[in-house]
Amino acid sequence: MRPEAPHVPFPHAWVSNSIMVARSVGKARASQTHYLTEEMQGDYHYTMGPYSSPVLHVKPGDRIVVETRDAFEGAIRHETDKPSELLRMPFLNPQNGPIMIEGAEKGDTVAVYIESMVPRGENPRGTCCMIEEFGGLTGTTYTAMLNEPLPEVVRKIDLDEQHVYWSKRVTLPYKPHIGTLSCSPEIDSINSLTPDNHGGNMDLPDMGPGSVTYLPVRSPGARLFIGDAHACQGDGEVCGVAVEYSAVVTIRVDLIKKWTIDWPRLETEDMIMAIGSARPLEDATRIAYRELIRWMVSEYTFEKWDAYMLLSQCGIVRLGNFVDPKYSVGAAIKKHILG
Amino acid sequence: MRPEAPHVPFPHAWVSNSIMVARSVGKARASQTHYLTEEMQGDYHYTMGPYSSPVLHVKPGDRIVVETRDAFEGAIRHETDKPSELLRMPFLNPQNGPIMIEGAEKGDTVAVYIESMVPRGENPRGTCCMIEEFGGLTGTTYTAMLNEPLPEVVRKIDLDEQHVYWSKRVTLPYKPHIGTLSCSPEIDSINSLTPDNHGGNMDLPDMGPGSVTYLPVRSPGARLFIGDAHACQGDGEVCGVAVEYSAVVTIRVDLIKKWTIDWPRLETEDMIMAIGSARPLEDATRIAYRELIRWMVSEYTFEKWDAYMLLSQCGIVRLGNFVDPKYSVGAAIKKHILG
Amino acid sequence: MRPEAPHVPFPHAWVSNSIMVARSVGKARASQTHYLTEEMQGDYHYTMGPYSSPVLHVKPGDRIVVETRDAFEGAIRHETDKPSELLRMPFLNPQNGPIMIEGAEKGDTVAVYIESMVPRGENPRGTCCMIEEFGGLTGTTYTAMLNEPLPEVVRKIDLDEQHVYWSKRVTLPYKPHIGTLSCSPEIDSINSLTPDNHGGNMDLPDMGPGSVTYLPVRSPGARLFIGDAHACQGDGEVCGVAVEYSAVVTIRVDLIKKWTIDWPRLETEDMIMAIGSARPLEDATRIAYRELIRWMVSEYTFEKWDAYMLLSQCGIVRLGNFVDPKYSVGAAIKKHILG
Amino acid sequence: MRPEAPHVPFPHAWVSNSIMVARSVGKARASQTHYLTEEMQGDYHYTMGPYSSPVLHVKPGDRIVVETRDAFEGAIRHETDKPSELLRMPFLNPQNGPIMIEGAEKGDTVAVYIESMVPRGENPRGTCCMIEEFGGLTGTTYTAMLNEPLPEVVRKIDLDEQHVYWSKRVTLPYKPHIGTLSCSPEIDSINSLTPDNHGGNMDLPDMGPGSVTYLPVRSPGARLFIGDAHACQGDGEVCGVAVEYSAVVTIRVDLIKKWTIDWPRLETEDMIMAIGSARPLEDATRIAYRELIRWMVSEYTFEKWDAYMLLSQCGIVRLGNFVDPKYSVGAAIKKHILG
Repeated sequence: MRPEAPHVPFPHAWVSNSIMVARSVGKARASQTHYLTEEMQGDYHYTMGPYSSPVLHVKPGDRIVVETRDAFEGAIRHETDKPSELLRMPFLNPQNGPIMIEGAEKGDTVAVYIESMVPRGENPRGTCCMIEEFGGLTGTTYTAMLNEPLPEVVRKIDLDEQHVYWSKRVTLPYKPHIGTLSCSPEIDSINSLTPDNHGGNMDLPDMGPGSVTYLPVRSPGARLFIGDAHACQGDGEVCGVAVEYSAVVTIRVDLIKKWTIDWPRLETEDMIMAIGSARPLEDATRIAYRELIRWMVSEYTFEKWDAYMLLSQCGIVRLGNFVDPKYSVGAAIKKHILG
Repeated sequence: MRPEAPHVPFPHAWVSNSIMVARSVGKARASQTHYLTEEMQGDYHYTMGPYSSPVLHVKPGDRIVVETRDAFEGAIRHETDKPSELLRMPFLNPQNGPIMIEGAEKGDTVAVYIESMVPRGENPRGTCCMIEEFGGLTGTTYTAMLNEPLPEVVRKIDLDEQHVYWSKRVTLPYKPHIGTLSCSPEIDSINSLTPDNHGGNMDLPDMGPGSVTYLPVRSPGARLFIGDAHACQGDGEVCGVAVEYSAVVTIRVDLIKKWTIDWPRLETEDMIMAIGSARPLEDATRIAYRELIRWMVSEYTFEKWDAYMLLSQCGIVRLGNFVDPKYSVGAAIKKHILG
Repeated sequence: MRPEAPHVPFPHAWVSNSIMVARSVGKARASQTHYLTEEMQGDYHYTMGPYSSPVLHVKPGDRIVVETRDAFEGAIRHETDKPSELLRMPFLNPQNGPIMIEGAEKGDTVAVYIESMVPRGENPRGTCCMIEEFGGLTGTTYTAMLNEPLPEVVRKIDLDEQHVYWSKRVTLPYKPHIGTLSCSPEIDSINSLTPDNHGGNMDLPDMGPGSVTYLPVRSPGARLFIGDAHACQGDGEVCGVAVEYSAVVTIRVDLIKKWTIDWPRLETEDMIMAIGSARPLEDATRIAYRELIRWMVSEYTFEKWDAYMLLSQCGIVRLGNFVDPKYSVGAAIKKHILG
Repeated sequence: MRPEAPHVPFPHAWVSNSIMVARSVGKARASQTHYLTEEMQGDYHYTMGPYSSPVLHVKPGDRIVVETRDAFEGAIRHETDKPSELLRMPFLNPQNGPIMIEGAEKGDTVAVYIESMVPRGENPRGTCCMIEEFGGLTGTTYTAMLNEPLPEVVRKIDLDEQHVYWSKRVTLPYKPHIGTLSCSPEIDSINSLTPDNHGGNMDLPDMGPGSVTYLPVRSPGARLFIGDAHACQGDGEVCGVAVEYSAVVTIRVDLIKKWTIDWPRLETEDMIMAIGSARPLEDATRIAYRELIRWMVSEYTFEKWDAYMLLSQCGIVRLGNFVDPKYSVGAAIKKHILG
């Protein structure tokens, strides 16, 4: 049976065939549109947890237009700025939220469909930089080295809804995604730099407009957090920073009752993906593949060892980041193979 | 100048020569003794963070007699018990606290001298077990495997202040230590299973009676948490569980103003140790050694490269655990080498 | 200046614009075609090193038609076979070679263009299996666990030059690549299961027909080894085994004098890639990205920090395997971005 | 039954109660003493493998007096020397051998009792240094970073059989051990910097005079290699270099028929130890502990889960190095606990 048409059409037609629409309470209908402006947000959050005050209450299926701030909260404005002087750990990667979803309880799953991401503010809106003791090819606070840190370098970047104007020589396509997305953990309050089984700072380029992310609910109301828009990002986010920018992010949020997942999942038009976050990187990959196998077994009638061996032939691995306190990996399979 | 004698003599004489006594506000004098019984504690905590209500306020140098509960909160009582039926993640490893220390501010260091650890309750007071998907030689939630989990095995163990009666064949010496100790992180609230730069579940056998631990203060009043007494433990806590028991732990808590440390440190009669917690295990080791070098340079007048090369000849490495969400390593040097 | 046309046209037209053709001694002209049949090969090799006897001498630019054997050397023939009874470590992954390339010396680079891979033998020609203590989601000899090993499962698979007939339910495209390719290390003789900076068992799905691989020369004559054809493979080769088969692999081999590279590299029509092999997986990724940056700096006039930050926006990461004694990762950039 | 007294008394009396004496062919009797001088050795080796020519043939139980060269083969003579100019990878860590042991076959074990280590040459006999891209707290060729390398620093050190005169400020005890010891792998030829299941560059401080090391035999005659004497070394060999020196190393070599071990083992007066070498460091630890459990089960009648849980209470972990291409860890248990 085809689900009822949504009140507001899907900008990405495939979503009408998504798991989100098939199984959610609100069918992603966008019966109501909420705004979460900077002003309404007030204080942004640097941890995701059950201890902060809600900023918004929505019903399953509602649409939310969120004004996110860039990962540096606008502190880096000129190429002569020194990140070490302007950034103050752990007050990085500001998050909107918590958004309360009516009826969400531990054991449910929240679905987040990203409709669109539109840049905010004046150009140069984009920021990339090299931060001391942060990034994939440098010693860090965890991979502790005695080498001198890399230099601090700041890039301010013009961007619009078509392009990211990296340099005179290089223009990249605007290919936005949300770096950080999660519901609250049950009792932990986790800084917004760290991904784990709640989601968080996964930095997966696939999590852009047209994707649906599934997040485990672990506390009443789910307590959704969102932030960290990237205008584009390579696999691994190797220097530690994408093209960070402030954005208007339009999402639909829905609730799938009694679908209990242990780690975040993602769906696009042509694939389903499980996401793991851990160190070392092989553990993130193991988690992602194991979750994908479990998903294929429980919902697509694959036999366990068949799924394991089949993914050895057609599994897709995406590296989110290998620069955060935990690294994120997505393991995916094309939908047409699922049959 | 020798510091004044304490009001209550030190059960371990060397403490009068410790950094704690030399630099702290209260000289570990034990002017006052507080009791933190189970009843006074009320609800135990499963995260360390800035969001919980204080249970006790003390002055620097005070003595506290704490009734800790075992890591399973007494839920495992018989060898026929199934941990998977009785334990409910993440409600494990209950912590006493938070204890507020007068005058403690971000940037200070709290010193905790463990005077004694005395078993509580009736024998068999000790518990060891194998928990599904937990431990060093099994797939876990992070090192995700498809293998069948190991069997659940429970050992109930008699112990007293001299011995741990492991089996008919094996009796081990009672050599207690505190598995989990920390002040609060600044904004995170971290579950009591995970160690990090705040301290937490380090499981270092050196952290027993006669040792002094130094912990960074990151929130007002320091908010000290303590729990997880082990009657004995091997390096690495390989099966994931030590001989867990409930104890009366007597500590003196003091404050060193303006001594800012990035990771926990430990002092015993004959060595100083820096402690790192991370994954993979080499990162924990790197952190510990780098912190030890920094310590030698800033407070013992060693030149940096001399310290680095010297530790290559005489550094001591202790493995706390390699079973928690992060692994803990201590890197130490004998005091007589420091001169 | 366009290079001279080859004697034998390139099945993949882009190769005429490759680094291989631009810089090599023989311009990949295929002046001569050699055959390395099973019979001529005689004993296959299970290590790559400087101690084995050459089986063929070629000139730069020559074409070689190689009969490779599957990774199990044909030992697994039925789905009822037990790999543990038929496979004998370390005699796995048989290699053709060593092939001597005229004029190759330490400090040079060998280029290998794969023209085609054609299946050999009768169907079911393909083999996949689960091998005890081998694979990504199981304890192994290095990631030592106490869990019972996974079951041994064998799949015999029909395949032709269009398809891999995985199961009644799933047919996959035939998308072949070479799993193992290398010149000899300088003094080590490394088993054919282990990749490292010489190349070896990298299991990169990009290394198929139409690709050019660049390999460092470390001993006189280069001593090229090749084997381990895969009819298809997913990222990471998660169960440890691809669709293994025997193939006729047609390659052109050429020599780039005085181009000294530290790790293998790969070129396709639209990207250049550096390959790293190490454990943990983040180290393989670090190597690959660092080599790619070095390449962009030395040959494409990028400034180092610009390259680092740019790859953070557009770098591509491919996971070869995370199941071998070392894991392999490719880091790539699209050629159009190089300008 | 007490074994016959040796022809030459044991400098360490406990050895008469060792596994070596109890089970070996030659009872470590030292019926014959061989000399392997620098001159007799001729070319030293930089790989351990089955392809080199024997330098000596001995009978089980024989004594060998070996002249080892320091890890830099004497190339670093002054504190103003630059390692980067004098050392040429992979020609480091020269090994004596291969020594053929009569009757040794694949599946057997060789036992090596170290009687004594006496310094050779004039003072300053000892060398420590910092080598670019090598060591525990710096980016390396595998943990690839973009940071500038650490400075090259050389220390020349006086030492005698009592002391290592590190600096004006610090004198350390002479506590020698052999850094590199192994029989040949079956088909690989592995550079002398890399430890693995054959042994090799384990850098375990416990492997000194008075210890017995057990090594798996994988090729006919065992092909024993030895080198890399350290006058002292800290846990982890953190800067990558110990106090390297040339020594006269007196060993007894014996053969235990049909004792098949997968990884090296070590015995001292009061403990037995299994040794693992791998990356990441937790894998080395896992290997060591699993091998120790297997040993306790097969030869000391422990039940598997009892051994696992017992080691969680009394296991001892020693970090050899975390600076080599693979890291080495020993897991041990006190003999008195074995009963």
